Amino acid sequence: MSDLTANFTANASEKCFHSRYFEDYHVGDEIVHSVPRTITEGGMAVYMAVTGSRFALHSSDEYAREMGYARAPIDDILAFHMVFGRTVPDISLNAIANLGYAGVTFGVPVYAGDTVNAKSTVIGVKENSNHRTGTVYVHSTGWNQRGEVVLDYTRWVMMRKKDEASPAPEPVVPGDLIDHVPVADLVIPAGIDVSKWNGQVTGSDAFFEDYEVGEKIHHLDGQTIEEAEHQMATRLYQNNARVHLNQHVEKEGRFGQRIVYGGYIISLARAISCNGLANAFRVAAINSGRHTAPSFAGNTIYAWSEILEKLEIPERSDMAALRLRTLASKDESEAQYPQKDSKDFPENIVLDLDYTVLIPRR
Amino acid sequence: MSDLTANFTANASEKCFHSRYFEDYHVGDEIVHSVPRTITEGGMAVYMAVTGSRFALHSSDEYAREMGYARAPIDDILAFHMVFGRTVPDISLNAIANLGYAGVTFGVPVYAGDTVNAKSTVIGVKENSNHRTGTVYVHSTGWNQRGEVVLDYTRWVMMRKKDEASPAPEPVVPGDLIDHVPVADLVIPAGIDVSKWNGQVTGSDAFFEDYEVGEKIHHLDGQTIEEAEHQMATRLYQNNARVHLNQHVEKEGRFGQRIVYGGYIISLARAISCNGLANAFRVAAINSGRHTAPSFAGNTIYAWSEILEKLEIPERSDMAALRLRTLASKDESEAQYPQKDSKDFPENIVLDLDYTVLIPRR
Amino acid sequence: MSDLTANFTANASEKCFHSRYFEDYHVGDEIVHSVPRTITEGGMAVYMAVTGSRFALHSSDEYAREMGYARAPIDDILAFHMVFGRTVPDISLNAIANLGYAGVTFGVPVYAGDTVNAKSTVIGVKENSNHRTGTVYVHSTGWNQRGEVVLDYTRWVMMRKKDEASPAPEPVVPGDLIDHVPVADLVIPAGIDVSKWNGQVTGSDAFFEDYEVGEKIHHLDGQTIEEAEHQMATRLYQNNARVHLNQHVEKEGRFGQRIVYGGYIISLARAISCNGLANAFRVAAINSGRHTAPSFAGNTIYAWSEILEKLEIPERSDMAALRLRTLASKDESEAQYPQKDSKDFPENIVLDLDYTVLIPRR
Repeated sequence: MSDLTANFTANASEKCFHSRYFEDYHVGDEIVHSVPRTITEGGMAVYMAVTGSRFALHSSDEYAREMGYARAPIDDILAFHMVFGRTVPDISLNAIANLGYAGVTFGVPVYAGDTVNAKSTVIGVKENSNHRTGTVYVHSTGWNQRGEVVLDYTRWVMMRKKDEASPAPEPVVPGDLIDHVPVADLVIPAGIDVSKWNGQVTGSDAFFEDYEVGEKIHHLDGQTIEEAEHQMATRLYQNNARVHLNQHVEKEGRFGQRIVYGGYIISLARAISCNGLANAFRVAAINSGRHTAPSFAGNTIYAWSEILEKLEIPERSDMAALRLRTLASKDESEAQYPQKDSKDFPENIVLDLDYTVLIPRR
Repeated sequence: MSDLTANFTANASEKCFHSRYFEDYHVGDEIVHSVPRTITEGGMAVYMAVTGSRFALHSSDEYAREMGYARAPIDDILAFHMVFGRTVPDISLNAIANLGYAGVTFGVPVYAGDTVNAKSTVIGVKENSNHRTGTVYVHSTGWNQRGEVVLDYTRWVMMRKKDEASPAPEPVVPGDLIDHVPVADLVIPAGIDVSKWNGQVTGSDAFFEDYEVGEKIHHLDGQTIEEAEHQMATRLYQNNARVHLNQHVEKEGRFGQRIVYGGYIISLARAISCNGLANAFRVAAINSGRHTAPSFAGNTIYAWSEILEKLEIPERSDMAALRLRTLASKDESEAQYPQKDSKDFPENIVLDLDYTVLIPRR
Repeated sequence: MSDLTANFTANASEKCFHSRYFEDYHVGDEIVHSVPRTITEGGMAVYMAVTGSRFALHSSDEYAREMGYARAPIDDILAFHMVFGRTVPDISLNAIANLGYAGVTFGVPVYAGDTVNAKSTVIGVKENSNHRTGTVYVHSTGWNQRGEVVLDYTRWVMMRKKDEASPAPEPVVPGDLIDHVPVADLVIPAGIDVSKWNGQVTGSDAFFEDYEVGEKIHHLDGQTIEEAEHQMATRLYQNNARVHLNQHVEKEGRFGQRIVYGGYIISLARAISCNGLANAFRVAAINSGRHTAPSFAGNTIYAWSEILEKLEIPERSDMAALRLRTLASKDESEAQYPQKDSKDFPENIVLDLDYTVLIPRR
């Protein structure tokens, strides 16, 4: 614990948000997160301004209606951030590292005007051998004002212990973490029909049939991150983790500077991937994700992808799914595809994302 | 008057906004400010992106409706800025210093879709002994499209004289500046009932009964200001005071850099105060406020508060009021509570705000 | 072609947006641009946050309704950017320089909720004598979801050839490029009546009759550009031209840094011009425009104008038009009016815009 962090802890009033430590999580605990959030056209515009995404479905109410949506749904990754933002005060404030995600499944579409809520259940705890930290596993769910699930995921983080001397809990590691979300669990929004999908409108003629397993696509565009941009994105989600927003503390920290919220890198990678995957209209699942290195203001983010699997969806002739691996780098435009858990993972790669998108068939 | 300012004045066409000088204000003058402003969900989102506020009432339409609001009202401090922004071309452009506020009373809630207007009446003028400057006192009022008052306040600023040789006006100093807004003058929005207020939703179990006079709360979180953030906030309010937006002039100025609009510091302090005061759902009044030092891009803002008074509200069993003193600092996380008008006020403290919030009772 | 650009080209998958080269344009080709865009209150708020515009018509739904609008229309220049943003992947990605505009005519007002589309027809091509580049002329049109034209313009850009050895096409230079949009072609929005225009509301008493041909107005205010601001503006429009957003590439480029989207300078000049032209409520046409030098983050933009012509509008007693020349500079507040195509054009002037505004009559 750094002196500054200790100082924060000493200063914390009983009335401040409870900054939880490893000892405060017990398997079976359910945490209903505070501060439900109504998502608006305003949030969508700020998100556009910090990502520049060009996916047609999220750009045009008219086109979205033609596909059976009520209007343009919010970007799936924005929905992720809005749910994630609910969980930060209870899960992330004292987290040392965001270790991984699994089984991230997107539910009903989210529209401007919807209000999202979130809760998390502790499903695992395991103290590390150093007795100073431990891993906490949570299963989190986000839902809208009608109680419909908008997001469901498992996440594990490394937490600081408050007291090294406190006894280690019985270790519980969830045994059923899925490698990837099966097709049967992907949510196809009700009433959607993309049989009239229009490549002229989206800017791409590449449909499901045009991609091959093993195919690699460089998305070309790079985006340079400014401090104001990642801070504004992070605050838009009400993610108040200190490490992203407080230079006065971070200048004394591990990197001497603020760290960009890893989710912002996912947003940039998804936005950049439009150049090559413009018809991948919905992120249906994130099978696993790893922030392999931190990003900072001044970094230029690039992204490239590999098609891992082509997945038929039963009873759908209008759409199918692609399982993708998208890698994002900082200040390095050359695509590399290192082995997933390689020891000598290239240090400029900041994101390794395995996810499943829906895409129209010809 | 700096050379550059002189240059501006010489260049000004008759068709430009009238930059008023001390001599241009006369007790009794009423100035109806130009450019009414419709506030939208877009403005609320930009405000969220530059403050990260977590007050539940402003985050969730659903929760706001449960309390009797039509939907989530805009943040009170955003309402302040939107009214204040109307007054800038007439009051602040040539102001040397924003000396103080008194009796700032918040009226009906402001919602997206409302249009605010503002006017100011000159209630005092007093030339300084240097014959180069003087203090102007104005009473300003903001109202919505239905003529309902949304904000009412007294403010005094130090203005430059255009001509040192012009005769000093009869000094008038308003004698009835109130020390604080009495409970009887606080506006409780019609139809609001917070008896079902939910600490689970807001993230805090601390209600009116849980606070004690003299209690001190450190709000812990620090937020680092970027140039783009304070400029975007300031322009959102259409506050066009040169000192915040023009580095070409300010690099030759007193500080060599742009000064952050003091109101942005109030916004950050209020947002940061949510950590410890999450149930203080409405700023009902600002009793007095002082920007004790300028803030600049790169500064990290912290805030802490003291409970000054606990105030019952007649005929209300669902809510009461707290009179608070919130101090904000730059690049200094240690809480200090100097005497209000102390000569050796700590130089890192940038805001000393005495205000009254509404908070539910148990 | 820089090595980095060559690298991008080599990496480009068939599935990426087609980066067109000079050889890919043929006179008569019609390009329907992808990604229609719904404009929202959110986009309007972000635009306000990066420009600070104070034109009353775009600020107040109430005032706009009094003039016969459905509500506050979006800023005309924002409408321009939104249409322009559609065309970027097809026209600008490989452009070396944006050479000019002509006959930019604004159509029906654009409101939040409207969706804009765009198409371009190639009307000219002319290879340069160096055989490495050529000029492409396009006529572009933007329309809304009801098929009503919102913008119509001619533009010419200098494009790179893909292969220097490829044969030059038959040169075609459009002969009928108009010097300025005639009054008869200006679009007066249906149902608008500004006979009750209110100088108190707009902040200016200067109406059509008060301006004289040859009159010069310095708009005084300067605005300093931050990287985050111009990037957010540019991405809001989904303008994904690399030169504005990718420091990793641009640090090796001609200027060693990102170049500000020229359209952002037009936005700032228009916003700044409110101080002196507050009643010029609609940009009806841009007769010609030239970005005379690049702008970069850190520059402070100033603007000044000359009245070129006073134009009566047949059968309108409530309004008339002014043809204006507005110049914008970087880091130079002194107004200069060089000859339009002068060889020794002052290097600090970044914009030379000839345009026509509507303004109420007394």
